[in-house]
Amino acid sequence: MADIPVYRAQKGDFRWDGVDLHAYKDEGSAPFKDITRQTLFKRPDMAGELRYFEVAPGGHSTLERHQHVHAVMILRGRGRCLVGADIRTIEPLDLISIDPMQWHQFRAAPDEPLGFLCMVDIERDKPQLPTEDDLAELASNPEIAAFLASHSH
Amino acid sequence: MADIPVYRAQKGDFRWDGVDLHAYKDEGSAPFKDITRQTLFKRPDMAGELRYFEVAPGGHSTLERHQHVHAVMILRGRGRCLVGADIRTIEPLDLISIDPMQWHQFRAAPDEPLGFLCMVDIERDKPQLPTEDDLAELASNPEIAAFLASHSH
Repeated sequence: MADIPVYRAQKGDFRWDGVDLHAYKDEGSAPFKDITRQTLFKRPDMAGELRYFEVAPGGHSTLERHQHVHAVMILRGRGRCLVGADIRTIEPLDLISIDPMQWHQFRAAPDEPLGFLCMVDIERDKPQLPTEDDLAELASNPEIAAFLASHSH
Repeated sequence: MADIPVYRAQKGDFRWDGVDLHAYKDEGSAPFKDITRQTLFKRPDMAGELRYFEVAPGGHSTLERHQHVHAVMILRGRGRCLVGADIRTIEPLDLISIDPMQWHQFRAAPDEPLGFLCMVDIERDKPQLPTEDDLAELASNPEIAAFLASHSH
């Protein structure tokens, strides 16, 4: 993506000229469901990177944490997210800041996709998945247990 | 903006909880018309910064250039932009990449605002304004001359 054209039009349905649609992560590398990734801006002369993720109805991102920060703006649809111990309903244009090492997960509503921008630094650490102990600790909060079990089948 | 809350909801009309509305630049520092700035994400542990600019109907940003890159996504309304020698009509979700030292300006349609996200690196150089010679050279292209003279009164 070293040579990005000046203009890339939206083609409709949150797809863009010259932007490839990717699987969210390599299959089997982490638990997730029905989510795609498009890298909108990533170039060697810029320290930030902007991606667009879209979670299909009932799908969810990986429950994970990492040292790097996520700066998120919801663009499409409805859903909920877990950040640390907080669960919130999210809708277009809401802003979400994910601090270092906060567990987080995005879940689309059962009947609507959830699309969001996520700004990160190009140089960043790899996400960590929860251990059995981490999951048990998270699930000791009944609200979080219910969140993690929702829409997942 | 060191302590950003996890969630900041959109309040409607492209304003957000806890995000101040600022003048685009200090009055008199550069030519511009009817434009506001909101800093959505800026924090010391992130190399990228995300701002939302809104140009009122008939308004425009400063014609300028700089070494740092702009990564823009249109969010609201309609307008046109000049990047280098290219003039394009822009609408929501279009992506615009402004390379180092390209002259650029955003102009809202006469009857619609133009709102856009702009990602930049936190560490960046100051914009340069065109000299009389630069303006004469730009205006030697009739399309650019017409663009620069449009909607400006």
